[in-house]
Amino acid sequence: MKAVRVHKYHQQPSIDEVPEPTVKGPFDVVVKIGGAGVCRTDLHIIEEQWADKTGVALPYTIGHENAGWVHDVGSAVSNVAIGDTVILHPTPTCGLCRACRAGDDMHCSNNAFPGIDCDGGMAEYLLTSARACIKLDPGTQPEDVAALADAGITAYHAVRKAAPLLYPGTTCVVNGAGGLGHIGIQSLRALTATNIVVVDRNAEALDLAKQLGADQTVLADGKHVDTVLDITNGDGAEVVLDFVAEQGAQQDAFAMTQRAGSHFVIGYGSNIDIPTIDIISTERNIIGNLVGTYNDLAELMVLAQAGKVTLHTKKYPLDAALDALADLDAGRVRGRAILTP
Amino acid sequence: MKAVRVHKYHQQPSIDEVPEPTVKGPFDVVVKIGGAGVCRTDLHIIEEQWADKTGVALPYTIGHENAGWVHDVGSAVSNVAIGDTVILHPTPTCGLCRACRAGDDMHCSNNAFPGIDCDGGMAEYLLTSARACIKLDPGTQPEDVAALADAGITAYHAVRKAAPLLYPGTTCVVNGAGGLGHIGIQSLRALTATNIVVVDRNAEALDLAKQLGADQTVLADGKHVDTVLDITNGDGAEVVLDFVAEQGAQQDAFAMTQRAGSHFVIGYGSNIDIPTIDIISTERNIIGNLVGTYNDLAELMVLAQAGKVTLHTKKYPLDAALDALADLDAGRVRGRAILTP
Amino acid sequence: MKAVRVHKYHQQPSIDEVPEPTVKGPFDVVVKIGGAGVCRTDLHIIEEQWADKTGVALPYTIGHENAGWVHDVGSAVSNVAIGDTVILHPTPTCGLCRACRAGDDMHCSNNAFPGIDCDGGMAEYLLTSARACIKLDPGTQPEDVAALADAGITAYHAVRKAAPLLYPGTTCVVNGAGGLGHIGIQSLRALTATNIVVVDRNAEALDLAKQLGADQTVLADGKHVDTVLDITNGDGAEVVLDFVAEQGAQQDAFAMTQRAGSHFVIGYGSNIDIPTIDIISTERNIIGNLVGTYNDLAELMVLAQAGKVTLHTKKYPLDAALDALADLDAGRVRGRAILTP
Amino acid sequence: MKAVRVHKYHQQPSIDEVPEPTVKGPFDVVVKIGGAGVCRTDLHIIEEQWADKTGVALPYTIGHENAGWVHDVGSAVSNVAIGDTVILHPTPTCGLCRACRAGDDMHCSNNAFPGIDCDGGMAEYLLTSARACIKLDPGTQPEDVAALADAGITAYHAVRKAAPLLYPGTTCVVNGAGGLGHIGIQSLRALTATNIVVVDRNAEALDLAKQLGADQTVLADGKHVDTVLDITNGDGAEVVLDFVAEQGAQQDAFAMTQRAGSHFVIGYGSNIDIPTIDIISTERNIIGNLVGTYNDLAELMVLAQAGKVTLHTKKYPLDAALDALADLDAGRVRGRAILTP
Repeated sequence: MKAVRVHKYHQQPSIDEVPEPTVKGPFDVVVKIGGAGVCRTDLHIIEEQWADKTGVALPYTIGHENAGWVHDVGSAVSNVAIGDTVILHPTPTCGLCRACRAGDDMHCSNNAFPGIDCDGGMAEYLLTSARACIKLDPGTQPEDVAALADAGITAYHAVRKAAPLLYPGTTCVVNGAGGLGHIGIQSLRALTATNIVVVDRNAEALDLAKQLGADQTVLADGKHVDTVLDITNGDGAEVVLDFVAEQGAQQDAFAMTQRAGSHFVIGYGSNIDIPTIDIISTERNIIGNLVGTYNDLAELMVLAQAGKVTLHTKKYPLDAALDALADLDAGRVRGRAILTP
Repeated sequence: MKAVRVHKYHQQPSIDEVPEPTVKGPFDVVVKIGGAGVCRTDLHIIEEQWADKTGVALPYTIGHENAGWVHDVGSAVSNVAIGDTVILHPTPTCGLCRACRAGDDMHCSNNAFPGIDCDGGMAEYLLTSARACIKLDPGTQPEDVAALADAGITAYHAVRKAAPLLYPGTTCVVNGAGGLGHIGIQSLRALTATNIVVVDRNAEALDLAKQLGADQTVLADGKHVDTVLDITNGDGAEVVLDFVAEQGAQQDAFAMTQRAGSHFVIGYGSNIDIPTIDIISTERNIIGNLVGTYNDLAELMVLAQAGKVTLHTKKYPLDAALDALADLDAGRVRGRAILTP
Repeated sequence: MKAVRVHKYHQQPSIDEVPEPTVKGPFDVVVKIGGAGVCRTDLHIIEEQWADKTGVALPYTIGHENAGWVHDVGSAVSNVAIGDTVILHPTPTCGLCRACRAGDDMHCSNNAFPGIDCDGGMAEYLLTSARACIKLDPGTQPEDVAALADAGITAYHAVRKAAPLLYPGTTCVVNGAGGLGHIGIQSLRALTATNIVVVDRNAEALDLAKQLGADQTVLADGKHVDTVLDITNGDGAEVVLDFVAEQGAQQDAFAMTQRAGSHFVIGYGSNIDIPTIDIISTERNIIGNLVGTYNDLAELMVLAQAGKVTLHTKKYPLDAALDALADLDAGRVRGRAILTP
Repeated sequence: MKAVRVHKYHQQPSIDEVPEPTVKGPFDVVVKIGGAGVCRTDLHIIEEQWADKTGVALPYTIGHENAGWVHDVGSAVSNVAIGDTVILHPTPTCGLCRACRAGDDMHCSNNAFPGIDCDGGMAEYLLTSARACIKLDPGTQPEDVAALADAGITAYHAVRKAAPLLYPGTTCVVNGAGGLGHIGIQSLRALTATNIVVVDRNAEALDLAKQLGADQTVLADGKHVDTVLDITNGDGAEVVLDFVAEQGAQQDAFAMTQRAGSHFVIGYGSNIDIPTIDIISTERNIIGNLVGTYNDLAELMVLAQAGKVTLHTKKYPLDAALDALADLDAGRVRGRAILTP
């Protein structure tokens, strides 16, 4: 089968012919890929940002945002059958460690992260496990929902954690109205009655944000921190969802956060550097966020199938994967790029 | 009356003769001071660290950790009467704003912080309000409990917030076994069954920590982060209570924090500087902490009166306040220095 | 001034001429009533259901759901001024007890409940306190929002407590689509993405429920428990909000509650009688609900002023109060009856 | 092998010779039983109380509280190996349903409950699954800890849920100081600083309660509700853990519960019958409790291995199972009866 493989850091992947994966263990599932999302993290992998954290051996197949159809199952798989349409939680988990037993899939002691630390889904087939599969309505097109498997779950997970803080009368800043931000806005609209203020450098992205449920938008023009403070009577927002967290956006995001409020870091790239006296004198929090739980993804699929969360995607055949990566890098993708069979 | 007043930053306060405060509003309470704690924040005030944040006009009386006896009350005060023994919540609050109505006294929109932004308790009398008074058993000596009014409430508040994370089988690191740390250890022992690991540069402080309930102690000798990781199977602690947060301790504290864990910043002084990729790839949190609520202090007094939290104090007459400040600055105070009438 | 006063249980109140209330304490507020809601509890008071619980001395003025304009204030009132438009939290509170300090206004140790245990608002003026006043936009008509002061806050409080249980994919049954139920439906729609199933005996009420955001409606025709179980794959609902809780509805509500789910009791009238083996073998909860907090009412006013919660009211002049009570008793009021000046 | 089997309701079980269970699926585990607890629920099974709820076919082997050594494992079992000492969570679960994915093992859609709805552990061997096994220190004697597998987890689960309500200054009533109650007292002592008041009809049980950490004890002599109200200034307790819930104890337990407090139902047998006006006018809750999660049991084992929770047991050889059941029924067992190989 074809697969998009990284052979060397700081060099484009190539599309190779490799053997199809096969079922070995009783809980294994092989999925025929119907949609594989292209993510900024794929660029960061090629840039070697994750090499030390994962220790993955090159070459390997990238692609950590996948949906498709069940192609083969191990002997003990009971929740899906061959032919089922599925979206995949990004991390197949053991189901036995403390984190798994508490529902914190992303903190499984024994998990794999296909596309990050082992072969992923920019290929014709992917090996995963029963615990990663969420069965969908047979009519669902995998290419239409694949972006929810990573961008979606990550944005939704942060919103789900923030929602209890966002009672009526509060403000939530969405810092960055890209792929994740758009899902974040819609998830906030579905789960809360907070005032949603979206900040972005791109005026078009802000227009789309308004259509998706933003109450107010602020152009990131250098005066945006002050603008957000003005909108909030000088207080800042109870929650800032920071989908950027690089190139100074992370410092702005903290500055927009209200006394006793929380800055949710979701994007990444630069350091956050804050005087501890500012943290304690206002009792603000900096909250890490990583993907989400299996149940998070299942809940998001409920919202998606009810039409409450929609996606903007741009589709490329698997053979054009390098074009998709190049377009993403050059800022030519609005919404999410998806590879299709 | 006598009062310890700051006239100029970077210069020792002086003990002045000033008029006694008097009741003006219906909720005012004047307290005859029985014990006023001397805190590192008093040194930081003199060093001008708080000047910009508070904008307080000099000269003014410091002292933000107070207990005593009710000397006079306004017409509408119903919860205490003249002669009652009281400990004072550090921030008299309005009782009307959203934060007050939610019990978050330290975030009152209209609060005062005597000793920080207006006249405090290193004096014979202090003006406060009914909402700041917690009535104590008449037999309580104010000088014995005054340190709970700020050091105590601050440590307890952080422990109270952390306790739901500290189920049996977890580890909590107490970073810094000084005045606050000692109360933190005892509060952890009372509220949780977590494994308490105390880190400090001072071997004597660690000995005392053991007596107060620490399960393990680690000398901060430069290898202490690795030692904590070893103790916790390489994982780090679910919670790190950072009572230092300066001179690199804040970076160590984050490094000792487990995946999905929380670093509680309670001390202050230096910047915390962390790559956002480290925050998101492990989903760790940095949690601000500021004093505590009125109910926090009331709960802590229950523990203190039951003997579950005890204090080490060194007493000085009010006239020797400058000696107390000098001793604190020179590291000659074990536990808390308290000024007495 | 005129006031609707109960002189004897099981007998209609009369409209008497009584002295206007006046400000005595520093936190007192006298409000000119602009709208006073008529509630089923007023009927229950006349029926003597509350006599033992309150011990109120007759005669007294009923009316516990009030909005209007500030007419006079005590010397220490800082949050409202004469002429301000206000809605009143039903229970003026002390601001000093543990419950007040935690924001649980309805559990204040020293509260009053005007219209229940002292003179209420079916009159030209009402004596309340600064802590009960929520200032509104000057353009707001008190008669348009008065019903939120008791019916509204009660429904919203229950929804606010239930919301964390109602993630996407869950079902919430609203048992009873009357005045409270309608506010409950709109609050659920604003705060959650749950599937809302409304049960009522009245087909018209169900039609209105659909317009207000119900996803499904079920006529209470004797087979409604089975219908709800069918809708939910035999499981029942994660949450049942029981706005009826009398004449068997409370037993049905428990029966519609899913394993590990919660039956919120909001209405009242009959006993709930459940085998403890049914409670433990399914781990179901029965949750009491009483009015709500000051912040609950403030949040609800945000939703109301944003148009997310609207009210159906029928207005009567104060002189026609007995007609309003009779209409309510006879089921002739759709929405809420409001007395106006 | 030998097994204690129920052939007919309302008739004593018999000790039969049956085939040993064998591993069939990849996640199966066969455990050689080292200790099997004898529980009041075993008597209730024989009395036919559970027949309708489980629909189990007779004859079958009872015993739902088990510990032992791993005897055989399926091909995919990775968390335990042959020879390991284990305690068993009572319900082997699927690991795939919403409840499992949230850590709510007792609400698994596909779980089995050996000893309740299929063959249990009053036998030489038991068939369970990898997800039910908690590995213990090799030196642990299964007969010493078996009682934690059901009595222990059930008491601990309720305490764990109640702990956030039990801050310093609160009171928790433990209603019933039998096997579960004793573990409840010790768990409360480990996890909270609440004031523990134990109510029981038996003076000896109260003496033991004091040794285990009770602050106060109250003989259930008919005046015990009043006594508890007196102890709590007329308010009642914030939490009542009701380990009895039959023969009127459940009504007393509700009556001892404070305004805004919670009555945790853990025992069972009679109906709870409460006017809804009493539930709403005080906003009290009735909370169901069922066994506990896998992580609950793992946490309890941490407490047990640290000596913070100890058990009183009376041991019988498996052949004397009928004597154990008879002794329990006759009230001749102090602590927990355990069958040993």
